[in-house]
Amino acid sequence: MRDSTARNTADYRNQPEKKHSNMLDLPLEATQADREPHSYERWLIAKLLRMAGSPPIRFELWNGEQVELEGTQPQFTIRLNDHKALLTLVSNPNLAFGDLYSAGRLEVTGNLPDLMEALYRNIHQAKQQWPKWLEALWRNHNPRSTGLTEARENIHHHYDLGNDFYRLWLDTAEMQYTCAYYETPELTLEQAQLAKLEHVCRKLRLKPGMIVAEAGCGWGGLGRYMAREYGVKVHAYNISKEQLDYAREEAKRQNLDHLIDYIEDDYRNIDGQYDAFVSVGMLEHVGKDNFPAMSDLIRRVLKPDGLALLHSIGRNRPMLMNAWIEKRIFPGAYPPSISEFMGICEQGDFSVLDVENLRLHYAMTLAHWMERFQQHRQTITDLYDENFTRAWEMYLAGSIAAFRAGSLQLFQVVFTHGSNNQLPQSRRDLYQSPAAPEA
Amino acid sequence: MRDSTARNTADYRNQPEKKHSNMLDLPLEATQADREPHSYERWLIAKLLRMAGSPPIRFELWNGEQVELEGTQPQFTIRLNDHKALLTLVSNPNLAFGDLYSAGRLEVTGNLPDLMEALYRNIHQAKQQWPKWLEALWRNHNPRSTGLTEARENIHHHYDLGNDFYRLWLDTAEMQYTCAYYETPELTLEQAQLAKLEHVCRKLRLKPGMIVAEAGCGWGGLGRYMAREYGVKVHAYNISKEQLDYAREEAKRQNLDHLIDYIEDDYRNIDGQYDAFVSVGMLEHVGKDNFPAMSDLIRRVLKPDGLALLHSIGRNRPMLMNAWIEKRIFPGAYPPSISEFMGICEQGDFSVLDVENLRLHYAMTLAHWMERFQQHRQTITDLYDENFTRAWEMYLAGSIAAFRAGSLQLFQVVFTHGSNNQLPQSRRDLYQSPAAPEA
Repeated sequence: MRDSTARNTADYRNQPEKKHSNMLDLPLEATQADREPHSYERWLIAKLLRMAGSPPIRFELWNGEQVELEGTQPQFTIRLNDHKALLTLVSNPNLAFGDLYSAGRLEVTGNLPDLMEALYRNIHQAKQQWPKWLEALWRNHNPRSTGLTEARENIHHHYDLGNDFYRLWLDTAEMQYTCAYYETPELTLEQAQLAKLEHVCRKLRLKPGMIVAEAGCGWGGLGRYMAREYGVKVHAYNISKEQLDYAREEAKRQNLDHLIDYIEDDYRNIDGQYDAFVSVGMLEHVGKDNFPAMSDLIRRVLKPDGLALLHSIGRNRPMLMNAWIEKRIFPGAYPPSISEFMGICEQGDFSVLDVENLRLHYAMTLAHWMERFQQHRQTITDLYDENFTRAWEMYLAGSIAAFRAGSLQLFQVVFTHGSNNQLPQSRRDLYQSPAAPEA
Repeated sequence: MRDSTARNTADYRNQPEKKHSNMLDLPLEATQADREPHSYERWLIAKLLRMAGSPPIRFELWNGEQVELEGTQPQFTIRLNDHKALLTLVSNPNLAFGDLYSAGRLEVTGNLPDLMEALYRNIHQAKQQWPKWLEALWRNHNPRSTGLTEARENIHHHYDLGNDFYRLWLDTAEMQYTCAYYETPELTLEQAQLAKLEHVCRKLRLKPGMIVAEAGCGWGGLGRYMAREYGVKVHAYNISKEQLDYAREEAKRQNLDHLIDYIEDDYRNIDGQYDAFVSVGMLEHVGKDNFPAMSDLIRRVLKPDGLALLHSIGRNRPMLMNAWIEKRIFPGAYPPSISEFMGICEQGDFSVLDVENLRLHYAMTLAHWMERFQQHRQTITDLYDENFTRAWEMYLAGSIAAFRAGSLQLFQVVFTHGSNNQLPQSRRDLYQSPAAPEA
């Protein structure tokens, strides 16, 4: 495990020998940190702030000088610790902001999620006025593929960082690395994650004896919940070995291993016939090119009266994944827009029964994760290094901001074969009792 | 009113002087009803049945001879009363089936909705094997436009048939000519329609003092319900004069006219700023070309924290409206596929919060309408004529079948501006108490 960790964390560091995928290949190393800023550099910053929709942000330069737009009332300060950081930032802000932050060459005063939310909201508005060339310059040009081999690498990159790492800040109930369900806002992370599992099971209308296929099972929490609370059999697929080891061990410990098969294989290889098909937090990694395959798969394995549920991050409109997240955190990730999502259902001649958007629930989930991450900051930095820790802080803070600003959505979609008339009469049964267990 | 009725019913008759939009312009009048069938006519019927996926149907010809496919066990009989009916049927079954039925030249033994459901289900399967030329031959080539002028004509065609006519078979509570909500299957039509209105209001999270825009208000029932039960102000738009006359009178009678403005104008002319935007059963008539305008409209009039609800017939996949329904019943109608529907939301940078599919609720609603229609069959035939009555029986039966077979869906979609964070925490509030009043 340490080997793979070392390989993964390399991405977050700014080592001179490492070739970065930074488009213009500008140096990320700090140099001449103490020279005076040129006037064109002040001009560049003002330009950048205007392009970003004049957010309430001031810049502080390497010599302590501050630059802000007239008429704005800055609530946050972004400090650039060397002059090359500025050029890097301007040439490709989507990628460089995260990289420079991870490297400690860009620092922030003020609450990071709040700053990121202000940025997201202002940029979303301002972007409509951008010239075409600018949008083309700043977009993510080479998102990674999600073929069978690449999918393995992509998943390994993120999910095999080590169970010990995720255990430090995910819920202690079922190690859920997906959006929780805060049916009421005061729930703890553990309650909200169990409520999510319960909500998903209710939406699938599970009954004892049913058999369920799960694509992308993480540490296996949903599978165990379904087996334990609903008495169903589960075939759960995942290509992350570390996660599966944990999942199998935990199922054995809970005497559930006779009900659950954790299978190390790609979702595209699922076979059999199932009463329900469920995938929580995998579709983001499937990639747009594979949506038809996803659709065909469900069409093939779902029984005529079965229900399917896909839970995924999504978008209000089609948009490429943020370059930094795609390159450094989730290679190959693509959150579908709602109509692209529905296209998966159309492709398979499915009937969409229920869509629920849990966007702000993901912001709350991430805020809980962030809090625990901070509690274990030193441990995590000792396990990896400061660059890694800062990269993850940026990822968590940026994600909170994206869900708060409406840049990302969280869709739970229930669907079935178009010909199936065994439909729930209403959704009242989902709300018969609280989904969360008592504290 | 009688004038407009006379004009409208003309469409349903097969008068020699009337030019039909039947593509091949084949004669619809009966001739030589008593000659012996030719062998190629038997061959054509067998071919037609095979193309339709071998449904459990036999044909009876004008001379009493029966034709059925080997190996099928017919549960229904379609009788053709003259030999020209067969040619008309084969050349354009989508359009001719309804026309011939209306004219009494095609008759059916067995339950009409059941026969139509069997047809829909079998054809849906079989269609995948059709040669391209056949699908091209049988499709609806010239659906009507839904520009400002045409929209008026289209709506007049159907909705100005006369309030007395609709009163005979719609619910007596609020004259709802849209899908009811059978939260439990034993509800009466009146209860289920009131439950629908309540369900819609709950989804919009209405509060006293709010102001609501309604596009396409029918006889004004939803507007009155919102004003009466939730104390909101309503601007309700419609281009059917007869419906508006009724709506205004009824609002006055209930002392609600100070809260509701019923406005005779196209939805595209709605102005002002609203806490909620609602449209129940109008989107089907908007036409695909006008979806962007619909989206822009809502973007323009919905307050930053307002919720919008569109309730519309839809599809699992993009498909043209059935030719007969489009030409004879709902000119210009186009039920969007779920991804086309979501495209309306994407276009306006909206965030989709909730989608519910009430497909089988519409089959139940239509079955209740059909039952009442049959109770008043003689009155309706006296008001119009036998052709009109048979056309409406076919329309109601075909619609029941389409919803049962999954050829049509009913989507209720709630959405809001992408930047709005004033979102309901969960959907539990929709289910706090039954939506339907006690019987």
